[in-house]
Amino acid sequence: MEQEIIKVGIAGFTGYTGLELLRILSKHPKVKITSLSSSTHYDKYLHDVLDFVNIENIKITKELEDVDVVFLALPHEASLDQVPFYASKNVKIIDLSGAFRLKDKNIFKEYYNLEYKLEHESIVKEVVYGLPELFREGIRKANIVSNPGCYPTAVILGVLPIVKNTSYRKPIIVNAVSGVSGAGAKLKQEFHFPYMEQNAFYYGIGKHRHTPEMSLYLGLEVQFSPMVIPASRGDDCKHKAF
Amino acid sequence: MEQEIIKVGIAGFTGYTGLELLRILSKHPKVKITSLSSSTHYDKYLHDVLDFVNIENIKITKELEDVDVVFLALPHEASLDQVPFYASKNVKIIDLSGAFRLKDKNIFKEYYNLEYKLEHESIVKEVVYGLPELFREGIRKANIVSNPGCYPTAVILGVLPIVKNTSYRKPIIVNAVSGVSGAGAKLKQEFHFPYMEQNAFYYGIGKHRHTPEMSLYLGLEVQFSPMVIPASRGDDCKHKAF
Amino acid sequence: MEQEIIKVGIAGFTGYTGLELLRILSKHPKVKITSLSSSTHYDKYLHDVLDFVNIENIKITKELEDVDVVFLALPHEASLDQVPFYASKNVKIIDLSGAFRLKDKNIFKEYYNLEYKLEHESIVKEVVYGLPELFREGIRKANIVSNPGCYPTAVILGVLPIVKNTSYRKPIIVNAVSGVSGAGAKLKQEFHFPYMEQNAFYYGIGKHRHTPEMSLYLGLEVQFSPMVIPASRGDDCKHKAF
Amino acid sequence: MEQEIIKVGIAGFTGYTGLELLRILSKHPKVKITSLSSSTHYDKYLHDVLDFVNIENIKITKELEDVDVVFLALPHEASLDQVPFYASKNVKIIDLSGAFRLKDKNIFKEYYNLEYKLEHESIVKEVVYGLPELFREGIRKANIVSNPGCYPTAVILGVLPIVKNTSYRKPIIVNAVSGVSGAGAKLKQEFHFPYMEQNAFYYGIGKHRHTPEMSLYLGLEVQFSPMVIPASRGDDCKHKAF
Repeated sequence: MEQEIIKVGIAGFTGYTGLELLRILSKHPKVKITSLSSSTHYDKYLHDVLDFVNIENIKITKELEDVDVVFLALPHEASLDQVPFYASKNVKIIDLSGAFRLKDKNIFKEYYNLEYKLEHESIVKEVVYGLPELFREGIRKANIVSNPGCYPTAVILGVLPIVKNTSYRKPIIVNAVSGVSGAGAKLKQEFHFPYMEQNAFYYGIGKHRHTPEMSLYLGLEVQFSPMVIPASRGDDCKHKAF
Repeated sequence: MEQEIIKVGIAGFTGYTGLELLRILSKHPKVKITSLSSSTHYDKYLHDVLDFVNIENIKITKELEDVDVVFLALPHEASLDQVPFYASKNVKIIDLSGAFRLKDKNIFKEYYNLEYKLEHESIVKEVVYGLPELFREGIRKANIVSNPGCYPTAVILGVLPIVKNTSYRKPIIVNAVSGVSGAGAKLKQEFHFPYMEQNAFYYGIGKHRHTPEMSLYLGLEVQFSPMVIPASRGDDCKHKAF
Repeated sequence: MEQEIIKVGIAGFTGYTGLELLRILSKHPKVKITSLSSSTHYDKYLHDVLDFVNIENIKITKELEDVDVVFLALPHEASLDQVPFYASKNVKIIDLSGAFRLKDKNIFKEYYNLEYKLEHESIVKEVVYGLPELFREGIRKANIVSNPGCYPTAVILGVLPIVKNTSYRKPIIVNAVSGVSGAGAKLKQEFHFPYMEQNAFYYGIGKHRHTPEMSLYLGLEVQFSPMVIPASRGDDCKHKAF
Repeated sequence: MEQEIIKVGIAGFTGYTGLELLRILSKHPKVKITSLSSSTHYDKYLHDVLDFVNIENIKITKELEDVDVVFLALPHEASLDQVPFYASKNVKIIDLSGAFRLKDKNIFKEYYNLEYKLEHESIVKEVVYGLPELFREGIRKANIVSNPGCYPTAVILGVLPIVKNTSYRKPIIVNAVSGVSGAGAKLKQEFHFPYMEQNAFYYGIGKHRHTPEMSLYLGLEVQFSPMVIPASRGDDCKHKAF
């Protein structure tokens, strides 16, 4: 496996998450993107949809085909449909949505307003949460990986040393800021440039979907206050410190 | 008239132009805003639509009523309808749209893709272009004033001294930048914060509606290249120089 | 007094605080700005220093003269010098620095690294904290008013209803964001546009000077985490909600 | 040569140009950065100066040592000194400054206010302008390459097809916008975040140093109006179109 090229497919490659994934994977020396699916762009060619992609042109399909690994960069609802579909085939699945990050169907319903059906129950049990610092071995062997949300990645990695090395289990208070890109490509009034520019606001306090995810994997209560600020992505920040 | 309070109505007060107008007029010592109309908010009360307005609460109506002066902060198409309507009443009209800025119906059709009907022809002749540096006396006496566009205001005021004081009448090249707020409150993909931030682009080259307006009032050909940049309104700029 | 025009002087009118004050006072119907002092611009004329000021031109001096009220928009150190100086004259003083906001000289030294001398001790006792919601009557009668900091104004006004109406006195956690303008006009690497744009960072945690100020006037412990975000001033935000 | 690893040194790696170069070269499969020089950081170690560099730690020196290729990311004045110094050694030089982009010493003096000495005259003749679309073969063989400025790169590549394929040689008018990062890391009042944010301004009209550079390599007169806008670098723009 080490020497082979892995054939990868991406479902939903035109959202912000999918685009970023496509950009990263297109530079990966052991990956070949062999399939792209889209519910809106199928039957078109990649280069007609995206201008400057440095990968081979391929035809966009409704379903991913001829792949070893499937990435789902889809809305939660769509992942609920597609994870069972691909699970029945001989492919590894990496789901970037929140559909399978939580283990408890009641909490999932409370925070996502979606319900697991019978077909999801075995999947929920099988899914491995894709944070290597927590489940490195499990991820290696998993058939279905559910990748963490953005806030949980940052918060779990930051708080884990305390949980691992101390007996502290009281609630923690998390204030976090996100750029607007975190909210995706969908047009919304509050993200219209003249509205968002020079602005900042808290949102989702008490009900943000990442709250139970952080609590679950840290094993303590999280009081979470996320704020959106007039920035986008994080590349520049990284660059500033190289 | 000098001592009286002028009763003013605004049609379309929730767009960016209308909001700014409402803000300015609400501080004017000789103006009382007595009527607000809206095709989407009629029958609601002002304070239910806008949070922090420092004027009396009034009921929003379909048509402006009990006013001396009518401001129309509407799309061009709506002004085409409403200017004739209010022209038949005993009120002064100040139209902020582009519906009556140009005098030539063919040029109007070419640039706005709209047509004057019979009822508009006498209005076009009567309308005074609301730039005091050009038509100060006309504006004082006018029943219908068509206010200039943003770019023409800046460009005409800048170029007028050359036209007035020299015989220069060759084409001029105008490069202008606008903040995103100039494009209004309507959601568009290119003005989604993550798209517009760190971005800038030319638009409307060769067909921007302000081009013939500048040419008409300056009396020379204008080659116009407008660009939108990641900024909004101009308050801060003004502040920087006080 | 009601009918009179108050003669006002501003010391330090070219910083961000002073400029904003000048802008507001220049529109005040009962105020005439009769004197401006500056340690760097004295002997120049106002209109040579600021381009678009809509007040009469006056000569900038080293000390404010012929005024009823003195505003000090100066660094803390400079206010320590100038408040005693103007206190010996027959003028009201409104100090915008942090020099006299705290009552305890030890806390002042700890947070500001500055010391009160003998001449300051009676001043500290006399000064009224300029937050009308707390000290309305005191402010009316005061000869020296020390205006609150930006964060304390927002936090005290927000938390006061809890303190007034409940017995809650446990520590509170305050997360606050400020635009870059809050840090003033002085050039700093972290506020260079390419560095700050797309960026955000906490600062001064555990030692921000506004922490003891909030604690003092609220009567409870404040755990304060201020963050600077890529925005400037707050005008647009206000505008968005009118 | 094709299979070898090229040993590269960078003089001035902490400016915006040098940092970007370091980032790009650190990912180049055939390059090993073996030497870094700095007039302010010499004798320190790289990892003490930059936090997150994914290259081996090395000691910063005053002069570059043990290299095949020298990149100079220095001010124009410093390149005037260092190009002759490294030209006397057996290394290839790629100069990113403007010191040797122009061929005419009088034009160089007019635009850069700097003078070539005797030692520069043979260098000026030898230097190849590092734009592959113009001098691909020359660059391959050159010992000293002078890399183009940012504006000339964009403008020459855009206009070259006209010059190559038509007889058009009349003056061209170029309006260009740059992000603030183009002006470098040096603190300046106009690039203080609260000043630049929401702002935009033309600069250097009639005297920008890139003007004669564009004219020289295009063979026609360029009327150049550069504007700085509130953006930084160009990564996001590229990302938007992938």
